[in-house]
Amino acid sequence: MSKKVSLTGIKPTGQVHIGNYLGAIKQALQLSDQYDARYFIADYHALNIVKDKQEMSDSTYGVAATWMACGLDPSKVLLYRQSDVPETFELSTFLMGFTAKGLMNRAHAYKDKKQKNEDAGKDSDFGVNMGLYTYPVLMAADILLFNTDIVPVGKDQVQHVEITADIAGAINHCYNDELLTIPKPILNSSSEVVQGMDGRKMSKSYDNTIPLFMAPKKLRKLVMKIVTNSQEVEEVKDPETCNVFAIYKLFANEQEQEALKERYLAGGLGWGHAKQELFEMLEATFADKRERYDELMNDKSYLDKVLKEGAERAREISSATMNRLRKASGIGC
Amino acid sequence: MSKKVSLTGIKPTGQVHIGNYLGAIKQALQLSDQYDARYFIADYHALNIVKDKQEMSDSTYGVAATWMACGLDPSKVLLYRQSDVPETFELSTFLMGFTAKGLMNRAHAYKDKKQKNEDAGKDSDFGVNMGLYTYPVLMAADILLFNTDIVPVGKDQVQHVEITADIAGAINHCYNDELLTIPKPILNSSSEVVQGMDGRKMSKSYDNTIPLFMAPKKLRKLVMKIVTNSQEVEEVKDPETCNVFAIYKLFANEQEQEALKERYLAGGLGWGHAKQELFEMLEATFADKRERYDELMNDKSYLDKVLKEGAERAREISSATMNRLRKASGIGC
Repeated sequence: MSKKVSLTGIKPTGQVHIGNYLGAIKQALQLSDQYDARYFIADYHALNIVKDKQEMSDSTYGVAATWMACGLDPSKVLLYRQSDVPETFELSTFLMGFTAKGLMNRAHAYKDKKQKNEDAGKDSDFGVNMGLYTYPVLMAADILLFNTDIVPVGKDQVQHVEITADIAGAINHCYNDELLTIPKPILNSSSEVVQGMDGRKMSKSYDNTIPLFMAPKKLRKLVMKIVTNSQEVEEVKDPETCNVFAIYKLFANEQEQEALKERYLAGGLGWGHAKQELFEMLEATFADKRERYDELMNDKSYLDKVLKEGAERAREISSATMNRLRKASGIGC
Repeated sequence: MSKKVSLTGIKPTGQVHIGNYLGAIKQALQLSDQYDARYFIADYHALNIVKDKQEMSDSTYGVAATWMACGLDPSKVLLYRQSDVPETFELSTFLMGFTAKGLMNRAHAYKDKKQKNEDAGKDSDFGVNMGLYTYPVLMAADILLFNTDIVPVGKDQVQHVEITADIAGAINHCYNDELLTIPKPILNSSSEVVQGMDGRKMSKSYDNTIPLFMAPKKLRKLVMKIVTNSQEVEEVKDPETCNVFAIYKLFANEQEQEALKERYLAGGLGWGHAKQELFEMLEATFADKRERYDELMNDKSYLDKVLKEGAERAREISSATMNRLRKASGIGC
């Protein structure tokens, strides 16, 4: 029996940080153990936000290199760029004809934006573009095109997969056929909240992130800026309330955690020492990956080749799906 | 200096009637005198309504054969099928990111539907699908992809071209470039209201149409059903209030009109006679075209060839436009 298909979309917007790595990348890469795992770089989703040519290009290469450096092997799983699969956009247009507008009105991202506008006394649709509003249809196209069985998602994305299933059901019903695979969401099990440099959740919007592949000197400088209290070197320190330790323990094994804990509790460990320990732990975890990342980013023609090969394999699947729909609907026949 | 580009979309929905011929086809075909005229069969626009495979296929071939029978020469102008040009859907997705949702809220077709729902005490978006709601974006993609200068439209469609110009302006502004040609609407000058078999405007929704290429026997039978009053043969009749004459004069030259008028006013002309005159006039006008239409509909492989060649020529233009946008935005680079 062939494996079920999983699909993971990666939006190329800005620098990847260690919170992304632990909260999403690591887990998504493990899907390939159990599933026919497919990954795509969602550049057209990013276009709603990224309106700068260089940023779009850099981020796209950046996420490809990041995921490959973290272990994605494009010879074993499918990796492609959304914009290389034109059937995505045709299917998205196709789906529009089977999507009730009411479904979009109820989508979280739009509803949140609308609520914020209304709370601020603005027009409900102020600053809303059609890319945001129709996002769930494009996402449905991404999913349905690749006969996806399961989509790993965070809680806030479950609804998108349900919308996708609704639309697919309407099409199967209309043409009296099992044209499209109905996808199911699986919740990311990761409950690890990765803490940022100031103790809040690590997030770009708080400007408290540690980038994944920062050069060692810069990384050390950044780690030294993690917010700590003003205790002196000789004082006993509490690892449980310390931002440095909170990040350290995400990467350390139990013995390593215990060893550092003891030093906290023994006194005589200055914040500089603790931060140095964290820096070395991050280096031990990411130095090889960073080296691979840098290599890849310095060889765009190799990345182009990988993406091109991915696109070719992706289009075998996507064109078969689209042809099935064309035949069923009489489009182009 | 090269000619300006005009673009005409043809929605393949149902049987074409003589009202369509006089109100749209004849005039659209004359565009090629003055413009680099391009015509496309808008099958994905039809998908919002046509959910039957056979109907979609028949209508698509049907409109291609109709327009060619009426004089469209695919070796002189560009004729293509929308679904054969995948850049249409990519561009449509691209445009979403630059289209304010407010623009769609104000589009006539959606507003009308919403008003009707509200008048009937239903939810505003009852029965509205995303195909209807996003129709202006797909139409903008159709127009912008082909560097269209002018779009011939009816009054109710002027707004769509204005929306297109708005979106194109936003993109040109964003990337600081003259990436897209800003289109202008030109109003169809035709003021001829073609009257149907019951005296109301000829329209599918009134079920009072005379199909363009009906077989002679059927056509005669249909013409004989045109609604007239109950005057006897010998009575004097008023051509100005007669449904038969109203249609006759659309196709007759001045002498022919005068001649029939005199017979109306002289008495002794029965309704059967008048209808026979109209039938013969329709035959004189359309018999050759019908023959050509039937030939084309019996040679689908020729139509396929025409559409395939059209698609190849169309894609030279469409892929150049899309590449320009990709380069400017960093998508796929």
